[in-house]
Amino acid sequence: MLDSKKQIPLKSVLDKTSSGDIFKDMSRLSSPKLQTLLINVFAKRVESMSPSDVLRQYKENRFVQPSKVDQRLFNVVDTAFFKNVDESAEVIELSPVAPVGANSIFAGIHQNNVISTVRNTEVMADTVTTMALECATRRQLGNVDPITLYTSQREIRAQKYEDDSGYLPHFQGMSVVSSYVFDGDEPSLSNALKEHLSFYLNGLKELSDKMENMHMSDIHVEISSMRLLHSLIRTLNLDLEHVKENARNENFDVLAGIDLPKNINIGDTIDGKISREYKITKILDYVQNIAEGATKELREKFPHVSFSIGLDRVVGMGYYQDMSYQITAKNKQGTKFQIASGGEVDWVKQLTQSKKERCVAGGMGVELLLTQFLLKK
Amino acid sequence: MLDSKKQIPLKSVLDKTSSGDIFKDMSRLSSPKLQTLLINVFAKRVESMSPSDVLRQYKENRFVQPSKVDQRLFNVVDTAFFKNVDESAEVIELSPVAPVGANSIFAGIHQNNVISTVRNTEVMADTVTTMALECATRRQLGNVDPITLYTSQREIRAQKYEDDSGYLPHFQGMSVVSSYVFDGDEPSLSNALKEHLSFYLNGLKELSDKMENMHMSDIHVEISSMRLLHSLIRTLNLDLEHVKENARNENFDVLAGIDLPKNINIGDTIDGKISREYKITKILDYVQNIAEGATKELREKFPHVSFSIGLDRVVGMGYYQDMSYQITAKNKQGTKFQIASGGEVDWVKQLTQSKKERCVAGGMGVELLLTQFLLKK
Repeated sequence: MLDSKKQIPLKSVLDKTSSGDIFKDMSRLSSPKLQTLLINVFAKRVESMSPSDVLRQYKENRFVQPSKVDQRLFNVVDTAFFKNVDESAEVIELSPVAPVGANSIFAGIHQNNVISTVRNTEVMADTVTTMALECATRRQLGNVDPITLYTSQREIRAQKYEDDSGYLPHFQGMSVVSSYVFDGDEPSLSNALKEHLSFYLNGLKELSDKMENMHMSDIHVEISSMRLLHSLIRTLNLDLEHVKENARNENFDVLAGIDLPKNINIGDTIDGKISREYKITKILDYVQNIAEGATKELREKFPHVSFSIGLDRVVGMGYYQDMSYQITAKNKQGTKFQIASGGEVDWVKQLTQSKKERCVAGGMGVELLLTQFLLKK
Repeated sequence: MLDSKKQIPLKSVLDKTSSGDIFKDMSRLSSPKLQTLLINVFAKRVESMSPSDVLRQYKENRFVQPSKVDQRLFNVVDTAFFKNVDESAEVIELSPVAPVGANSIFAGIHQNNVISTVRNTEVMADTVTTMALECATRRQLGNVDPITLYTSQREIRAQKYEDDSGYLPHFQGMSVVSSYVFDGDEPSLSNALKEHLSFYLNGLKELSDKMENMHMSDIHVEISSMRLLHSLIRTLNLDLEHVKENARNENFDVLAGIDLPKNINIGDTIDGKISREYKITKILDYVQNIAEGATKELREKFPHVSFSIGLDRVVGMGYYQDMSYQITAKNKQGTKFQIASGGEVDWVKQLTQSKKERCVAGGMGVELLLTQFLLKK
């Protein structure tokens, strides 16, 4: 429909749009009509362009310049990370474009921060939303089995960061999306989290074994719960809006001045009096249970990796439904970076309008891994 | 400039555009203003979209669906092809987008057949043009050394093909671009062609060694010359326009009924009387010389690959300046496919406005390779 074989003639679009208010006209056009208009506009515009116009754009437009990382390195990372993925697992190759709105609707990325195209699509900004669309499509075709999709792909974002922020206009994302139908059985969630953590921890191990110039220490897996955080916020009578506003502020400490540990070892109990006082006994039990299932084998397999339940993680607020994870590590200079993160999202639930749908989505930025942890020879 | 930190306010765009002719207004807007308008239009449009709108688009829009090939297979192909590339060579990771017009201006792809975006870019349709832009940029920064860039990336094209054509909306392209400053020394061209052919032949060999289910026979390298073809067309008084119109018609035989061989072995002479009659003695000498330099070592290294000079290759007409190559092979069913092709293009010359600039650009479609030559286990 949006890309019908028979394209709408430009004239029939124009006849009905020329009200004199270009913004209103364009906002109201049907998608196929807007597509026709925009395709014709760009065909017209490039007619008058010269090679030097294109070259100037290549030099000036921050989106079009190549990565500073050799493509063979990305290849090495992909090989390492996919080596331990079960052969029956699905490592899918997505399109360079996603349906327009895929990220602003689910992932809370403003449409201004993705690059929309003239054909009702947007350049891939985050592969996890497209993988959720793929999961939802399969659910609607009758597939009720757990689905886990992996992919490694370049993503592009239009936010303007300061040059020294480390954020890049485009970067390689290594992502996992697990989708399952919840039947009241908590191990499903533990299993999904375990798959994600296994993928990243195995990949990091494989990569360090392969690259002698890689230096990574203090790898730490933190599991958090939004519901637990919300319980604390309610009990402590904190201003929720204030917490949300500071969700991405690294210096913000939601539990400042409170006698709760910020991190608990998985399996450890906290003082029953404290947990009752903060009304988190039940939710903490649940979180311990999920975390135990997700990490038991991994704690044995990776004795040098530390694991904890984090009580103060506010970063995923408004994004993750409940359980989330992050993997951090220190580079040779001792600076700590988040390497991968993920958590429960409600995208497949929203897409299929089925309350039983659960989805865990996670990702890792490969450029950060390579530039911060792989030392030059 | 095209993506300035300070974005133009939408209002200042609208004040000057509302003439009532939306197409004319949009075609005339400056690039930054058009960008502002389009960003705002899409932000407005997605506000009213629902998850089910996005899911419907995902199912219906042919551009957004994933490849049918497992990403691990692309990874294997990349690893195989880049294994024999010199470590000092540059395998670059390009952006998912190119400057708008990059392909319609150089590669003769109509702008309707690429996907333009709201930010003066287009989704990568052919990596070779962007690599030529990179070469031109380096030339302007004073680099006079030969440059060879390799990359493997997904490309997207908007042509509507029949479903059974084998053409896909998006596919993995494995490309090489060589750029050098011509100093009257023909070996530069031979060397560039040799680099391309080595890359593809080594890669195919490496891949067959690795994949026991790959079946490829009758690998053939054909080297052609547009200047030689044009000589023949002139001497034979053929209708150039008619030949051009049939440049992509596989059943068209430009040398039909003429006593010239369609293929000559590299190093073989043809009857002096015939070559004088068709006025190709001098150009054929040149072509033999280039082809000899490009293939001498490769003919020894790959005794099972055949090599020839093709006199009747019209496919690159209007695209390649002179010398070109194509690699073909047969699959298990005996069907012949073109695997890779490339040739001399004038893109860097046009971009730098320097007559001494030479460029050889070539590519291979990885999906075709995998689907036609790799048998299911």
